[in-house]
Amino acid sequence: MDTRTPLYERFAHELEERILAGTFPEGGRVPALRESAEQRGLSLSTVLQAYRLLETRGIIEARPQSGYYVKIRPRKVGLEPEANPAPPSEDPKKVSIDDMSIRLFRDKHDPDFAQFGAATPDPDLLPTARLNRILAELAREGRFAVDTSTMPEGCEELRVQVAQRAFGYGCEVGPDDIVITAGCSEAMSLCLQAVCSPGDTVAIESPTYFGILLILESLHLKALEIPANPGTGMSLDALGFALENHPVKAVVAMTNFNNPLGSRMPDDAKAQLASILASRGVPLIENDIYGELYFSERRPSLAKASDATGNVLLCSSFSKDISPGYRTGWVAPGRYLDRIRKLKMAYSNGTSVLPQLTIARYLESGGYDLHLRKIRKAYAQKSLGMVRAIEERFPEGTRIAEPLGGYVIWVKLPGGLDSMSLYSEAVKSRITLAPGFMFSPTGKFRDYIRLNAAAWSERTEKDLARLGRLAADLA
Amino acid sequence: MDTRTPLYERFAHELEERILAGTFPEGGRVPALRESAEQRGLSLSTVLQAYRLLETRGIIEARPQSGYYVKIRPRKVGLEPEANPAPPSEDPKKVSIDDMSIRLFRDKHDPDFAQFGAATPDPDLLPTARLNRILAELAREGRFAVDTSTMPEGCEELRVQVAQRAFGYGCEVGPDDIVITAGCSEAMSLCLQAVCSPGDTVAIESPTYFGILLILESLHLKALEIPANPGTGMSLDALGFALENHPVKAVVAMTNFNNPLGSRMPDDAKAQLASILASRGVPLIENDIYGELYFSERRPSLAKASDATGNVLLCSSFSKDISPGYRTGWVAPGRYLDRIRKLKMAYSNGTSVLPQLTIARYLESGGYDLHLRKIRKAYAQKSLGMVRAIEERFPEGTRIAEPLGGYVIWVKLPGGLDSMSLYSEAVKSRITLAPGFMFSPTGKFRDYIRLNAAAWSERTEKDLARLGRLAADLA
Repeated sequence: MDTRTPLYERFAHELEERILAGTFPEGGRVPALRESAEQRGLSLSTVLQAYRLLETRGIIEARPQSGYYVKIRPRKVGLEPEANPAPPSEDPKKVSIDDMSIRLFRDKHDPDFAQFGAATPDPDLLPTARLNRILAELAREGRFAVDTSTMPEGCEELRVQVAQRAFGYGCEVGPDDIVITAGCSEAMSLCLQAVCSPGDTVAIESPTYFGILLILESLHLKALEIPANPGTGMSLDALGFALENHPVKAVVAMTNFNNPLGSRMPDDAKAQLASILASRGVPLIENDIYGELYFSERRPSLAKASDATGNVLLCSSFSKDISPGYRTGWVAPGRYLDRIRKLKMAYSNGTSVLPQLTIARYLESGGYDLHLRKIRKAYAQKSLGMVRAIEERFPEGTRIAEPLGGYVIWVKLPGGLDSMSLYSEAVKSRITLAPGFMFSPTGKFRDYIRLNAAAWSERTEKDLARLGRLAADLA
Repeated sequence: MDTRTPLYERFAHELEERILAGTFPEGGRVPALRESAEQRGLSLSTVLQAYRLLETRGIIEARPQSGYYVKIRPRKVGLEPEANPAPPSEDPKKVSIDDMSIRLFRDKHDPDFAQFGAATPDPDLLPTARLNRILAELAREGRFAVDTSTMPEGCEELRVQVAQRAFGYGCEVGPDDIVITAGCSEAMSLCLQAVCSPGDTVAIESPTYFGILLILESLHLKALEIPANPGTGMSLDALGFALENHPVKAVVAMTNFNNPLGSRMPDDAKAQLASILASRGVPLIENDIYGELYFSERRPSLAKASDATGNVLLCSSFSKDISPGYRTGWVAPGRYLDRIRKLKMAYSNGTSVLPQLTIARYLESGGYDLHLRKIRKAYAQKSLGMVRAIEERFPEGTRIAEPLGGYVIWVKLPGGLDSMSLYSEAVKSRITLAPGFMFSPTGKFRDYIRLNAAAWSERTEKDLARLGRLAADLA
């Protein structure tokens, strides 16, 4: 549109573009005449002419005493979504872990999908109604006052609650040893930044949660894969060998319920891990996000519980048992506390106070332990149910890592079947899953899938059966 | 404590340590006998003996039908705070920018201080009561449902609102071009990560907001200082020279109301800046956090408004006009959108939904523009009032950059007075301020201070007068 086009036409065109982009949604108001004129330094009559043009074209409409509204969102020719979109590329070599992660995020928000992909908790197993009551209560009390502007380490109320729980499982961590974060992901990001420099090597479990791989990549760190066993987690023998032969600057481990394995490192092995790394001065970043979701009688211990030198940075969050959308987690970073606090300050000043105070009040007011007992049982049953169904419905030769806690199931498909092909077929049937290649920086595990047992129910049983048939067809 | 110590004594000692650390605060409950026994795998009688020991020592007390509570928090000899703590080091060479930033954070949370330090808004100029009503309303509606778990780019409701406002000031940015962040700091952090690699050089204004320096340091980036003028901001001549002679990978600028200068780059200079950088393919990270707080008749424009190639990454937040504690900002990253979205996903999965939905509802429901008009006027008056008072109360030779928007005042002290010495004296009188060395990576501006005019009122007038006398004494 060149400069000889009249001003009102240019402004009308600009507004139409914004309506097309969704800035002004169908049925919503567009700025009042006077507002547009003032903001853009246009005359009122120019704006009026522009609005009339769009009105004539049926894009906006005037409503008496109220203003102009979007009547119909125009569609540009060629911009309509295709009726039958092409299936995503089936060649995993062409799909990166981050592209695949974004895809799982999209799948997760599609209500038509059987949610076997992203490891989101079962919405019915979150204390949402209770949280909403607490939120309303805190808002009424004016508790979210402006003077609760953030500190880099977060709100004291929540740090006290986290410390009390840590005491319960034998970790000597006080409120002042804790930094509240935007979920466990930020906790991990801060830890890796605190203990490594770009180019450094970090030992990780293999397979490992893909989120950790995304963080390593974003921080320009190299991953060294240490084999992990579906029962007992990271192999300490292999780790010992790696420490002898590689310049390992940090170790990342989910000692309780590795995602995707569902493994649990025995408590004495955890103590041994802490001791090996302390003696070498290599920090351990221990991710305990699934730690509360144990299927056994008692909570398993942590490497952090035998950390005498502050060498273990313990990370966790409330995303699995309270709310994923709150994005609230924490880190007890041992001797790296000062560095973590400064990195947190640099990155975002601090964590939002609303979710922090809401969770703190929830933990203070009791009922959390009861809630945990309930969901532990539910996830144990879901996991068992899904494992049994896979055994029954998947082709012969399928192998399953039976989880000891958490709610993800790691499955090896028979005959070297490429799980990315299975994903591509599955999405056509509105079923999502996490293909195995995402769990290794070197593309191992192409014949594995991770399934989210939190989505297991009578309703999704048929989806799993269908997935089993698709696997059989491809095998 | 060795292993010959009886088990109950060891457990009592552990619990006492945790009470000392604040995990169990004075007046609060300690875990019930049965709870401790179960969690720690101890017998009920061992736990009872431990509790009785602490009870005898007057540290906890039993309340009938209720459990055990902390009666008095024990104090370790030698751990009492000193009656007259030593003043902080007065040698700025020994104080790093991040140490000084943490100190300003602490000062900010001390209600006894005259808050001329951190650039926090005036609590009375935030719509807190209104936000609390909206929060309660959303909670009652069950709007914070679990299915609103995060997307890396944030909630659509808020992105639509941001896009509508951007349209108002002439930026062609749709909801899908925006990523919601944990404040403007995270927006800046993501941008710098997206466009730079460790070791790269970034051109910044001099002086510049110290938060930007903290981010650069945390990302292993080098800063190149481009002189900025109190009236018109970054010198384009100097920038042109720098681009010719240095491997500049990105430029960071607060084109509207640089912190600490309060300068405003003329709108045509902004367009020129965008064009120079586009032609060289060097991305511009434009920080507009103070953009709405203009003292003139109309909102000034942005370099982003003349960005045709997606080379400008525009960052802002609601921390100055809605709530600092909400930690909610945004970035419109142009052609770096995909990279920013992936970095955000890696770092924290997404931003907390509570503050996002609350702010979106506030913006939707009207009244924000009225609020902005009110606070613009108030901050203009506060700034003017403080400038006049400095002129009157500070020693001769003091020079002031009169701000054109925002609410910080940049002051040059006479006679080369070291502002870190002034800070050290001021805190003794419960007055905080930001010493000038924080605003330069090379320690320039040691004889400058930045004052927060948001804290200016009749009540703090005497504090400013006192600060002026302290400066005169040191000069």
